[in-house]
Parts: sequence; C-alpha cells; structure tokens
Amino acid sequence: MTDHSAVTKTLAEFVVNSRPGDIPEAVYTEATRSFLNWIGCAVGGSIHPALDRALTALMPFAGPAQATVLGRGVRTDMLHTALLNGITSHVFDFDDTHLKTIIHPAGPIASGLLAMAETRKITGREFMHAFILGVEVECRIGNSVYPEHYDRGWHITGTAGVFGAAAAAGKILGLSVQQMTWALGIAATQSSGLREMFGTMCKSFHPGRAAQNGTMAAYLAAQDFTSSDRGIEAPRGFANVASTKFDPKEITENLGKTWEIALNTYKPFACGIVIHPAIDGCVQLRNAHGLKAADVASIALKVHPLVLELTGKTAPRTGLEGKFSVYHSCAAAIVHGRCGEHEYSDECVTDPVIVGLRGKVTAVATPGIHEHQVDVVLTTTDGKVHHLFVEHAIGSLGRPMTDAELDAKLTDLCDPVLGAAGSARLIVAARSLIDSDDASRIVAAAIPA
Amino acid sequence: MTDHSAVTKTLAEFVVNSRPGDIPEAVYTEATRSFLNWIGCAVGGSIHPALDRALTALMPFAGPAQATVLGRGVRTDMLHTALLNGITSHVFDFDDTHLKTIIHPAGPIASGLLAMAETRKITGREFMHAFILGVEVECRIGNSVYPEHYDRGWHITGTAGVFGAAAAAGKILGLSVQQMTWALGIAATQSSGLREMFGTMCKSFHPGRAAQNGTMAAYLAAQDFTSSDRGIEAPRGFANVASTKFDPKEITENLGKTWEIALNTYKPFACGIVIHPAIDGCVQLRNAHGLKAADVASIALKVHPLVLELTGKTAPRTGLEGKFSVYHSCAAAIVHGRCGEHEYSDECVTDPVIVGLRGKVTAVATPGIHEHQVDVVLTTTDGKVHHLFVEHAIGSLGRPMTDAELDAKLTDLCDPVLGAAGSARLIVAARSLIDSDDASRIVAAAIPA
Repeated sequence: MTDHSAVTKTLAEFVVNSRPGDIPEAVYTEATRSFLNWIGCAVGGSIHPALDRALTALMPFAGPAQATVLGRGVRTDMLHTALLNGITSHVFDFDDTHLKTIIHPAGPIASGLLAMAETRKITGREFMHAFILGVEVECRIGNSVYPEHYDRGWHITGTAGVFGAAAAAGKILGLSVQQMTWALGIAATQSSGLREMFGTMCKSFHPGRAAQNGTMAAYLAAQDFTSSDRGIEAPRGFANVASTKFDPKEITENLGKTWEIALNTYKPFACGIVIHPAIDGCVQLRNAHGLKAADVASIALKVHPLVLELTGKTAPRTGLEGKFSVYHSCAAAIVHGRCGEHEYSDECVTDPVIVGLRGKVTAVATPGIHEHQVDVVLTTTDGKVHHLFVEHAIGSLGRPMTDAELDAKLTDLCDPVLGAAGSARLIVAARSLIDSDDASRIVAAAIPA
Repeated sequence: MTDHSAVTKTLAEFVVNSRPGDIPEAVYTEATRSFLNWIGCAVGGSIHPALDRALTALMPFAGPAQATVLGRGVRTDMLHTALLNGITSHVFDFDDTHLKTIIHPAGPIASGLLAMAETRKITGREFMHAFILGVEVECRIGNSVYPEHYDRGWHITGTAGVFGAAAAAGKILGLSVQQMTWALGIAATQSSGLREMFGTMCKSFHPGRAAQNGTMAAYLAAQDFTSSDRGIEAPRGFANVASTKFDPKEITENLGKTWEIALNTYKPFACGIVIHPAIDGCVQLRNAHGLKAADVASIALKVHPLVLELTGKTAPRTGLEGKFSVYHSCAAAIVHGRCGEHEYSDECVTDPVIVGLRGKVTAVATPGIHEHQVDVVLTTTDGKVHHLFVEHAIGSLGRPMTDAELDAKLTDLCDPVLGAAGSARLIVAARSLIDSDDASRIVAAAIPA
C-alpha cells in the first residue's frame, strides 16, 4: 500500500534511489529523440527577438560565464542560461508534447541540466538518466492534476515543469531524500504560469523559468534551505491549491515500471497540432504525384471542427497569422513540401504563388473525422482527382516521426544558425550524447562556428 | 464608469501618471514608519541561518557587486540582493501587516527598490513615492481576491507582492503605460507561494522572490518583452485562476484617493499577533508595579479561543517553539519587559527563571473576548491582585506603535548586528530618507561598521 500522505517523499525516494541501469534501453532511446528535438528547437529559436530582449534586460545582473546560450554562444551564469535556453526551446511552439497532459516535457528539464553540465562533469548516461527522471516527475505530477488544473488556466508546462527541473538537478547534485523532498517543496512554492500569456513572449518564459527556478530549488535544498515535506499533497500544497482534481495514484502507481517519456511526441510542423493531419495529407499527395502549385485546381478538406475554430484564417498577413490558417498551411505544404518555421515567415505568407494557391483550398467540418484525421481530395488542373484519407497524422503516437524525420526537422531549424555542416555535426553529437564521457561537449556543436 | 475589462491597464496608468505631489504628507509619514520597521527587520534578520544557506547556494551564480545585503555588507547583483533582503526582512515574522489582507507589504517592495537605488540615483522622495505606489498595487490586488485566495492556500504576501514589486520598479524605470501593463502581466505569471510552507525557510523566501521576480518583470518589460494586457482580470489571468473571488472594484475604486499604506501596522512582539494582547497586558502590569519574576504568584488570562489553538504549548523547548507558547511569552514579558527576538532564543526559553514563571500562567478561552483583547489577573506573592483589561493591544490599528516604540524595536533588532551607535545612526537615516538626494546612502548605515 502506498502512503498517499507522503507523495512528495515517495517521489523523492524514487529519484534518489534510481540507478541508470533501472531504466530500459528503449526509454533511453526515446530520451535521445526528445533531447535531439529539444536542442534543435533551442538552437533554431535563438534567432527570436524574445531572446534579444531577455538578454538586454537581464545580462547586467548576470553572473560568471559558466554556461552557454545555445545558438548564440553568449556565455553567462548557469541559472540565467537555464532560463534563456528554456525560452528559445519553446518560442516557436515546436518542441515536444506529452499528449496526456499537453506538457512540453523537455524544455524545463534539459535547459537546466545542460547548463549544469557545463559547471560539473556529467557523463552522457548520467545526463540522460536525470533527464528521464525529471520528465517522469514532471509528467506524473501533471497527470495527477490534469485536466482540471489546465482547464483552470494554469500553463502546465510551467507549473509541472519546475518540479521536474528540481528533481533532475537534485539527482545530479546527489541530494539526500530529505533534501530532494525539500527541493520538490521549494519547486512547489514557485510553481506558476498562466494560460492568459499564450500569444505573448511570456509563454516561452514559462519553461525557461521552470528550468531556472527548479534548478535553483535543488541548489537551495542542497544547502538545507528548509521547505515543507509535503509540498505536493498537503491540504495547502501545490495540488490542492492549484487544482480541483488531485489523484495521487497517478504519481505513485507503477513508479519505476512505466516511463512517461516513452509517450513523448514531436511536432513535424511549426504550428498547432490541430492542422497537422491536413498538412500531412497535402505533403503526401505532393510527393506521391510530384505536384507543383500550378498543377492544383482545388484542395477539398474534410476536417475536425476544431480546425476551423482555431485555424480558420482565410487571409493571413503575417507569419504568425499563417500558423492560424489551414489554407496557408496546405498551400505551403504543396509548394515547399513541409511546414517548418520558414513556411511561417512573413515572406512565405505573402508569396503570391502561395496566396494564389491558398484560395483554392476549402475545408468543411465533418462529423466522424477525428482530431488526428483528415480527408483530402486534390483535383489537378488536368482533371485528375487524388483522394487520401489520413488515419494518423505524422507526429502522433500512432505514427511517430522517424529518426530521419527528426533529423530533417533539426536541420531545417538549425541551418540558418549553424549552417548545413553545423547541423549535421549537432545531430551526430545529440545521437551519441548518451555514450559521451562529458555531456557538456555537445554545447560546442550547438553554437555557430 | 470604470472599465473592469481593463483593470491591469487602469492600474498601470495610475502608477505611470502618479506624481510625488499627488500623495498627502501623512501618507509619506506612514511610509517612513513602514520603511523604518522594514529595514530594522532586514538588518536584524540577517543573523538567521536562512541567509547563510541562500548565500552559499546562490552566490556561485550571482552577478556583479551592485547592491548590498543588509546587516552583512555582502555585495552582489541587484536581483539577488532583492531576494536576500526580502528573506531577512520576513524571517523573524516581525515585519509589517496590512490587517485587511494579512499581507506583509514592505518586504516585496522595499527589498527590490533599495537594491535598485544602489544601481541608479534615486532621491528619497522618488524612493518613497515608488514605495507607496508599490504597496498600493500590492494591497489593492490583495483586497480584490481576499479572503478566498488566502483561504485556498496562497501566501498572499508572495502572490500579491510580486505585482507591487513590478509596479514600484517600473515606476523608477519610467515605463510607458504599455510596458507597465506588461510588467504587471509578467508579474502575474510568476505569482506564487503556498501557505503549506509556513514554519519553514520557504515562508521568508516568498517576499524575497516576490521582490526579485517583480523587479525582474519591470526590467523585462522595459525591453518590450511582451505579456498579456490583462494579466490580472482576464478569464485565465491571475485573479480568476488563483481565487474564487475577484472584486475588480477593490482595485479601481478611489484609486489615488485612499492609500493602503495608511492602514499598515507593526508588530511590537516577535511572535504571532494572536498573543500580543496577553504580552501587552503583562508588560503593562510589570511596568506599572515594578514586578519581578519572584513577585508573581499567578497570572490568570482570559483569552480568545485562537490563543490556545495556535499558541497553547505549555512546555516549549526551543526559541521557535516559544513563539507558539502564550505561557512562555507572558513569563518572558514579566522578566524582560518585552518579547523581541531575544526572548524567543533557545537560551531565553530554557532559562530556569522563565521556565519556573511560565508554570504559574493559566489561560482560559472566554466568550466575548475579542482577538485584540485580553483580561489579565496577576496575583503577587504578597497577596496583591492586579487586574487589567486590554481593549486594543499595542500595535493594532486602534493603538498603533508610536515612533519611539518603533525606534526601540529597531534598536532591539539591530543592536546585535550594528551595535548601539549603529542602530541610532540607522534610525536617523531612515527617518530622514525622504529628504535625501540619494536614497542609497542609507545602506551604509545598515551594515556593520
């Protein structure tokens, strides 16, 4: 029988006692895919003005050059690095998704850990072990309060992420069970992030602060800065204060037997998941029939109602608005064969070829079409009719991105920052991180030469 | 008609447009009293191990020597200084109280502002103006969600304090209305702090982090780091997410006409407010009749039921436990004539004279005795019976501490750190801060010579 009056301590014991060999290799493999996806997003996102503004605001107060802002090469103190890499890894909304909770797991955990790795020698295996444990803590706490906690308005990537960051950092620091319990308590009392911030720079601030604050919590606990022993489950602890649902079994059951990171997914397209099936269908038809924009007479989509509700913009004017247009997205998919960050640039959204093509796309909300599905009928100018029904869009749990597709996504994100050779080097470094005797060595591959 | 769909912007406009001359001198006078009480608590609290642990944990990541940890003289970056002075100012639970909300207003505001004053020249009047505005924002937001927000489990000094810190820092930075609105939004999405942490070092961490995070929010907003325009009032903004009550009128009505800092109170004794009437009664009888421990045969108290519920420990063993013992507190009041931090040391709690005397104290929960009241019957060994009914305990709004009593409190707190001459210098510096052409000059008086 699990003692549900000691959920925080149970989690702390689990993290403290876990050994690298306790975790199946398949879980490490998924962790490597999650890490590769994360570092690609962080490097690619480093061109975003949110990073420039945060750097200008905060560097006057920053500490020693201990760690590296990915994609930039700016060096600053470990805690600010955790914040800044957490921001860039989420700023394109292109990072990983734990579909059960809509948590984006990697940002809060990897951003803190990689910064730490630059301050003390950690092997790749130790790094990945702590990463998996951090994601486990983060997602289990998320599971215990989802969906009521999210529905209430909390951005769960921030609120749950801070616990995962504390656990991962605490594992590297070798905290005792008491200290790890306090680290989770210090995390609990910093848990924050509002969904009202969506659409502003504060959204990506959330995983950044979760990384920074959770890591800080572990360092404070290492010095016996005291906290509650029951930060999660107490009547005035995190779960009861910030959610109307709390199911402690989601935290304690099968702990160490199942692994939440095994359920992680990756976005193939740089927009909301709801239009991924439509883009996927268009890319597939394009590639199968070698279609160009001039070949297309019409594209008729049958979609889930949410597609029109969330992405029904017929005449987007900017890159950001393009993310909320199924019409633009399908046109870009035909022309470019993908919908990466480039396809959501102002330039691409105003490209006359794409503007012309998007007017030929129609979408009808259709009963029976699931959120992961789409029905596409593409008619060519020479009268051919191509029909495709997508059962599971690429990137869903039913049809995960392949390693090659993840590599191509990283390349697409990182080429503008690192160049083609640099992106290739980063892929090799990420795929071999787990065998490295020094996890921080990858950082050199994640900044411009 | 006030537009309640734009509460955040209304507050931002108020802060941005406020001029020093808009505020009555009596309000500045109370602000000076609040500041003096705050700096005494911060200097006195600097001997607490929470500060040592936070310094050891965080200084490896800290930035340039921009500002000063009060009572210690350690110099570090402005944001860490805000955190550390916020911690020490609350760590003895001896700081100010806005009784309407139980917010401790000064910590989150003054800790950030004084650190800022060391990085840019601010006059004493500018400092006090920003301080008053920060407290106004903090307490009005608190009023709008109290008591449901507090009852839910949020430590309102942290959750509301971060807004006040952002407003005060933003005023000094001269933010535009748009930037101030974003600063409040960046504050909103960091609002945190759980009541579960009471009794641990994390309680004092809350005003520290509120100061640090709110100040950081203002600096980010100054660089146009974007946030929601409706961080407080939106359906998924702070108030609706973190409270079941939200009354926007508490924020907008009489804005600029009434001043929350005018309602501030100060604790004469270093323990929970609930036993202040009993201590006050004992001190009064002691002083009126020149009583010593050996003179007392018995002390019989009639008290509000909460006194026994919260402070009913008959045999405390440590200084901290002494704070939860009305028996110890009354015995110490007779012996020392006060209950400052010294009277809650381990040494004082185990002093045989006080241990003997506390056994002669009885307390009975009595209907009709209000929380601010106590009935004391003290019988002396020579058979005299002294009776005193305390209507308003010292430190309540009905009987505020005098300036002389505040000075004595500061002296009591600061003598162990600064010495008697140093405490006297600090009092002069605090009382004349408002006339200073450089607010930061007081810092030299708040560290050991």
